[in-house]
Amino acid sequence: MTKPTSIRQTTARRMSSDGGSTRPSMIEPFRAVRQQTQAIAEPLAPEDMVIQSMTEASPMKWHLAHTSWFFERFVLRDFVHGYVSPEETYDYLFNSYYNTVGPQHCRPRRGMLSRPTVEQVFAYRRFVDDAVIKLLERCDEDVELRRIMTIGLNHEQQHQELMLTDVKHVLSGNPLLPAVYPSPRDGTAIGTIPETGWRRFNAGVVRVGANPDDGFRFDNECPRHRVFLEPFEIADRPVTNHEYLAFVESGGYEQHQHWLSMGWATVQDQGWRHPIYWYREDGRWRQYTLHGPVDLRLDEPVCHLSYFEADAYARWVGARLPTEFEWEQAAADQALDGVIADEQRYHPAPLDPRETQPTRFFGDVWEWTGSSYTPYPGYRPPDGALGEYNGKFMCNQYVLRGGSCATARSQARLTYRNFFPPESRWQFAGLRLARTLAA
Amino acid sequence: MTKPTSIRQTTARRMSSDGGSTRPSMIEPFRAVRQQTQAIAEPLAPEDMVIQSMTEASPMKWHLAHTSWFFERFVLRDFVHGYVSPEETYDYLFNSYYNTVGPQHCRPRRGMLSRPTVEQVFAYRRFVDDAVIKLLERCDEDVELRRIMTIGLNHEQQHQELMLTDVKHVLSGNPLLPAVYPSPRDGTAIGTIPETGWRRFNAGVVRVGANPDDGFRFDNECPRHRVFLEPFEIADRPVTNHEYLAFVESGGYEQHQHWLSMGWATVQDQGWRHPIYWYREDGRWRQYTLHGPVDLRLDEPVCHLSYFEADAYARWVGARLPTEFEWEQAAADQALDGVIADEQRYHPAPLDPRETQPTRFFGDVWEWTGSSYTPYPGYRPPDGALGEYNGKFMCNQYVLRGGSCATARSQARLTYRNFFPPESRWQFAGLRLARTLAA
Amino acid sequence: MTKPTSIRQTTARRMSSDGGSTRPSMIEPFRAVRQQTQAIAEPLAPEDMVIQSMTEASPMKWHLAHTSWFFERFVLRDFVHGYVSPEETYDYLFNSYYNTVGPQHCRPRRGMLSRPTVEQVFAYRRFVDDAVIKLLERCDEDVELRRIMTIGLNHEQQHQELMLTDVKHVLSGNPLLPAVYPSPRDGTAIGTIPETGWRRFNAGVVRVGANPDDGFRFDNECPRHRVFLEPFEIADRPVTNHEYLAFVESGGYEQHQHWLSMGWATVQDQGWRHPIYWYREDGRWRQYTLHGPVDLRLDEPVCHLSYFEADAYARWVGARLPTEFEWEQAAADQALDGVIADEQRYHPAPLDPRETQPTRFFGDVWEWTGSSYTPYPGYRPPDGALGEYNGKFMCNQYVLRGGSCATARSQARLTYRNFFPPESRWQFAGLRLARTLAA
Amino acid sequence: MTKPTSIRQTTARRMSSDGGSTRPSMIEPFRAVRQQTQAIAEPLAPEDMVIQSMTEASPMKWHLAHTSWFFERFVLRDFVHGYVSPEETYDYLFNSYYNTVGPQHCRPRRGMLSRPTVEQVFAYRRFVDDAVIKLLERCDEDVELRRIMTIGLNHEQQHQELMLTDVKHVLSGNPLLPAVYPSPRDGTAIGTIPETGWRRFNAGVVRVGANPDDGFRFDNECPRHRVFLEPFEIADRPVTNHEYLAFVESGGYEQHQHWLSMGWATVQDQGWRHPIYWYREDGRWRQYTLHGPVDLRLDEPVCHLSYFEADAYARWVGARLPTEFEWEQAAADQALDGVIADEQRYHPAPLDPRETQPTRFFGDVWEWTGSSYTPYPGYRPPDGALGEYNGKFMCNQYVLRGGSCATARSQARLTYRNFFPPESRWQFAGLRLARTLAA
Repeated sequence: MTKPTSIRQTTARRMSSDGGSTRPSMIEPFRAVRQQTQAIAEPLAPEDMVIQSMTEASPMKWHLAHTSWFFERFVLRDFVHGYVSPEETYDYLFNSYYNTVGPQHCRPRRGMLSRPTVEQVFAYRRFVDDAVIKLLERCDEDVELRRIMTIGLNHEQQHQELMLTDVKHVLSGNPLLPAVYPSPRDGTAIGTIPETGWRRFNAGVVRVGANPDDGFRFDNECPRHRVFLEPFEIADRPVTNHEYLAFVESGGYEQHQHWLSMGWATVQDQGWRHPIYWYREDGRWRQYTLHGPVDLRLDEPVCHLSYFEADAYARWVGARLPTEFEWEQAAADQALDGVIADEQRYHPAPLDPRETQPTRFFGDVWEWTGSSYTPYPGYRPPDGALGEYNGKFMCNQYVLRGGSCATARSQARLTYRNFFPPESRWQFAGLRLARTLAA
Repeated sequence: MTKPTSIRQTTARRMSSDGGSTRPSMIEPFRAVRQQTQAIAEPLAPEDMVIQSMTEASPMKWHLAHTSWFFERFVLRDFVHGYVSPEETYDYLFNSYYNTVGPQHCRPRRGMLSRPTVEQVFAYRRFVDDAVIKLLERCDEDVELRRIMTIGLNHEQQHQELMLTDVKHVLSGNPLLPAVYPSPRDGTAIGTIPETGWRRFNAGVVRVGANPDDGFRFDNECPRHRVFLEPFEIADRPVTNHEYLAFVESGGYEQHQHWLSMGWATVQDQGWRHPIYWYREDGRWRQYTLHGPVDLRLDEPVCHLSYFEADAYARWVGARLPTEFEWEQAAADQALDGVIADEQRYHPAPLDPRETQPTRFFGDVWEWTGSSYTPYPGYRPPDGALGEYNGKFMCNQYVLRGGSCATARSQARLTYRNFFPPESRWQFAGLRLARTLAA
Repeated sequence: MTKPTSIRQTTARRMSSDGGSTRPSMIEPFRAVRQQTQAIAEPLAPEDMVIQSMTEASPMKWHLAHTSWFFERFVLRDFVHGYVSPEETYDYLFNSYYNTVGPQHCRPRRGMLSRPTVEQVFAYRRFVDDAVIKLLERCDEDVELRRIMTIGLNHEQQHQELMLTDVKHVLSGNPLLPAVYPSPRDGTAIGTIPETGWRRFNAGVVRVGANPDDGFRFDNECPRHRVFLEPFEIADRPVTNHEYLAFVESGGYEQHQHWLSMGWATVQDQGWRHPIYWYREDGRWRQYTLHGPVDLRLDEPVCHLSYFEADAYARWVGARLPTEFEWEQAAADQALDGVIADEQRYHPAPLDPRETQPTRFFGDVWEWTGSSYTPYPGYRPPDGALGEYNGKFMCNQYVLRGGSCATARSQARLTYRNFFPPESRWQFAGLRLARTLAA
Repeated sequence: MTKPTSIRQTTARRMSSDGGSTRPSMIEPFRAVRQQTQAIAEPLAPEDMVIQSMTEASPMKWHLAHTSWFFERFVLRDFVHGYVSPEETYDYLFNSYYNTVGPQHCRPRRGMLSRPTVEQVFAYRRFVDDAVIKLLERCDEDVELRRIMTIGLNHEQQHQELMLTDVKHVLSGNPLLPAVYPSPRDGTAIGTIPETGWRRFNAGVVRVGANPDDGFRFDNECPRHRVFLEPFEIADRPVTNHEYLAFVESGGYEQHQHWLSMGWATVQDQGWRHPIYWYREDGRWRQYTLHGPVDLRLDEPVCHLSYFEADAYARWVGARLPTEFEWEQAAADQALDGVIADEQRYHPAPLDPRETQPTRFFGDVWEWTGSSYTPYPGYRPPDGALGEYNGKFMCNQYVLRGGSCATARSQARLTYRNFFPPESRWQFAGLRLARTLAA
């Protein structure tokens, strides 16, 4: 098994980046991303796309419309002279949180909208597609247009992941436990995965984060800056279902001492007893996946943990979560060797005992870090409405790194900072252990 | 304009009754009711049928499945030997509140179910239709079967009304304000409706309620019994939009003295300022209807009031709501002259100044009474699961009488007791005034 | 054991009535009622008087101030020329719900007020006492003044009962289970109480309610009017702890079929398993009382039931709650033979097997009726602020009759209508069974 | 005006530290801290000490008992052979959150306890005082005992601050706005404070945090470790009321763009328009203080801000909050020159234009930092119950530094980490600005 080239080397060349000097047309990337979104929606029934199962999630229909609204609002309205929208109400309905451009339909009520229908939303998408392509055919070279288009494409890719996690949450609450995507063909489990190995890092100043001219980067990844890391070691691979099940079965969810105070309160209020999509049936552990319910495979990376659960597990084994900068240092020479969304397999792949270590920094499951989501020194959100994209959410959220089986290739990059509140369980999120070493 | 014959004379002969000795087949009534349900659903998109806009309402898809479940559960499972359900999970998903036959999917989460899809629900309906008809072809004469079938048909007719009120609530919350049924062709308003006239009744003992052998009656209408009424008078017609608008515009929603304490708290908490589907646009009063948004017609009976609003209005004009028995006495010689659901016009019809008075006891709008929903003396719910149909809801609800434009003909009968909590606004409910006279 | 004279004969002569033509001074009754309030408060610590344990209850300190505010607001401000309040803020702080006279401190936040202190509240009481007595000395004969004073005294007596029930609720939530009043000296239990006897009433029109000139009556008791009662029978005595315990121990709180739908939802949401102040300790049933925790005595009337529990118990034994008019007819010739507050024993007395039957219509425990709290035909609230006293609460509440061990003598009268929402458990409320007979 | 010696030099010699080798007796420090607690409670009425105004705050009575429980639980029960508690129930009632030693009375219900009364709590305090002193007289030299005693004294000092902030919150909600402590004698304002000056720091690795042997330090301040700081500058003094008022009056609370998304949601949900204890009266800005309501002095440090408000203000002026490490570096050579609790003036002191700059890092107001409360590298909570003291709260809280006018002298130290959730407004918290400089 040959290891692919490291993530640092490859990410600059990815589809959604616009840093190159040759300026290839944006029409193809645009078509590809838009098509990928359709592909995710296609296997679903219209009914699946209407429901909002909790405030934090949105109906797939809303995602489909919002990602088109983004291009309408920030590209068509600004770059097409005399642009007329097919439906002005959409500007209100499908604005997510950009107060700068106007008021929004109340977020917890996104699931109250039966109209526009799925068919009408697809028509809206086609309208936007045509208008954007017509525009690009005319002025593909416009620097500002390319900048906004690039954000729009990355934005849509982020929503592709949310479509999957949100619809999974909807369907998982249905006693019929529907399978919506074709099953992956995994081999049978080859026995247990060997104990995790550890990789040591010495103390020192390291550079982390990105500069905007590294290729497309979100503002929250910038600027590149220095941090000091005390000596630490980090696990060679993510924690597995096998390991996490030991925590579950030893009573981990009944013992206060492993948990943050807020985590323990959440465990008790919500009655958590195991990861969200696990359940017991006839004495076996099962899990719900987008490919239908299956037996819990012990050799898979554990998935759909909250920060609270990841943190508690780490404490239980005498370790901790890495900081986002420890993770970034350790991942800098790693390759993308986990499953990502482009493979259309929306579930982490089993680990292979023969796999070269370290492994799976990128893909399969997002990895919770112990870092609160805060601005980097010198961080400045862009001017205008897109300044609302990231900065204003830097509170009470924790950073995840590395990308998951539902992440588009270009987002599974070294400096990408995903972030969610610590109680969030519905993302494809697991963990990798770390430990502080004596200085 | 000739008045139709009185309600007392006609209701015994209606479709859903089974009291006759000739025992006509139930197949045709069954087909007719089931077909009427389909007709209501047909103009809607699948997306419209998924959403639950509040705990008290259900998705149309759920109503479509639940009314079929009712026949499956109480007819097919009990009367068809070796019956096999096409999908056992439906017995859990579509049980509304019959604890006797098993646990239920949590009511506030009925809108979380994308599956079965609308198409699958229709398939389930067809399956149940076929099985019931096959059964009826075999043993149409079975008395117990006929009894349950009759309840099932009346049950489905009740749900037809809820489908309309529930989907109206869903659609009204959508800024696109969709029109889903063809508009009625009302003439233009002919000016104001004359002041209401009053009809006096002397004190005395009257008989109210029904006996089960009067034709089909729900248990809560029985037994027929005596009540004493002090002298009263009752209005010849329902309160109009014109009259209610005067209350709104005189500041009725800002003045505590007209309201019950709970009503006033609700007005303030919810920010009520006018009936639920009214709104102001460009200086005009508009209202949302299932036929789309229209100007508020002043000659229509006021509709979509809560008990709190009906009660406050009555107090404002120095009157009160009639009790359900006053209403019943006054309505006993009245005909069905208002709009009912069979006309497929889901909005009250304007009053006509030339109309013979009294009028509109039946149809157009349910009329709130001042009576709490309580058991009649000697009331006994039936044995078994169907005993949960009515009796257990006799708490904190108020009785409405007379039927609305969304009510099936057979439910718009003299002794029928509709009931809702006092804050409910989404039913087609208005009021008729009453006053106590000196003894 | 001789039975006292019947309630009908005695209530007209009670302390708080003002109907007599001799016009005895109101100074003594005023002093007596005010003194009785002090006596209730005296054994408590200041800390006991601050806490509001739920929205529906008020701190004792608030009751002490509010009952003085009532005289200040409706007597001193209206009858004393140039009256100056010692503290104008109290007009806002201690107005309960009289919107007519101004805004109020938010009810659920009555327990947030440490100031005025208990001492300051007592000073306020003395100030009001002095000013009222000075006024009465001057114009005791003024009819309108006497009318308001009489309401004020009855009002304060009502609050005396609430002081007891509210502070009991506060103290019961304290693991130290404090005893605050001296224990009653009950004899030991003499074995079980014989089965309940029944008294039959034939069908007919009866007169119920009061006329204002029967002596003091609240507006909600008026006017006297006719109702028709179908034949019924009613129990000779209240349900006992012994009987209710059988319901508890047979699993009554785990079986849906006995409960109203709202009741069953409440049982499950709140985890009810027995009456509110009962608990198990070392295998015995105990109950918390204002005299401290004691063993559950089986020969006492069951107490502190909600309407839901009373109704469920009645259904479990195949009976029902009486209507308020059935109760009133049956109680009309009954005497006050139960414990009332004047005895300073704040717990129901055991039944005595040798007691003449029927018994205990008045005193010991309020008896839930199946009647919703609605206006009598011809009911008219008084003009002005005192019109807010009763009428606006006639919604979603149920009537209790007869008075309890915490009720002042004058309130334990035939036509008195107490009322609480059906989930209320903290009043001294039990039940008496009734059954409909064949007509 | 001479500047006192820097904080680094002085804190090691403070009262509550136990690092010295001479081992002075702990009896005096114990008496002093316990006495200081009494002094805070003394001016209050018992009623003031009962109320819990929100879940996050506790009644003063509870603090008085809990700080005694701490010594009973961790000193007397562990070090006194055959110790018998005067009241075993207190072990449940006054345990705050130490799951290791047993269950606790539910936190949001601390204000539901009228018993033990204030007098009984003081008796409990005296009992504990006597028992502890007797113990110390016997074995003052025991290292482990001294360690726990030291934690207990620091713990009690922390609660002294909470007593003040919690009772202020209680009293501020009372329309009577009581003054409970004697007013400070501030001179009149001498005009506006000059613009803030800035102090620059170059990039580099700095050491932050404490080692346990620096004198008493909480576990969360340890271990001392290295961080890299990019170049920054920090303000010479805290933000003033004058400056913050400009934000308020320019509409800062109505403009989304200054706020974190969670902050903006909170502003709108809670209707925030200015700092919590400010109000307008007759056209003037006033503020509630523990010394009673006073005019808003513009020359005082702004106080009682949430993190959201501090962060929004900083963004409005184009600056940001310092990180806790920037703050620590800048404060390392600063003296304690602000007001602390030992002065019994519970309100920040006005700034003096003649004051040597930089100033007021310590005392007056806690300063919000932009740092999430996370463990330092190598952090390890102590074993046993006291391991629950700090570590489990490291989630969704932000660090404040420097101490306030309600902080005991020994807590106003360089490495002390105070922490609160970002919406908390009731602490004496303000801010000092910082800015990133180009590298």
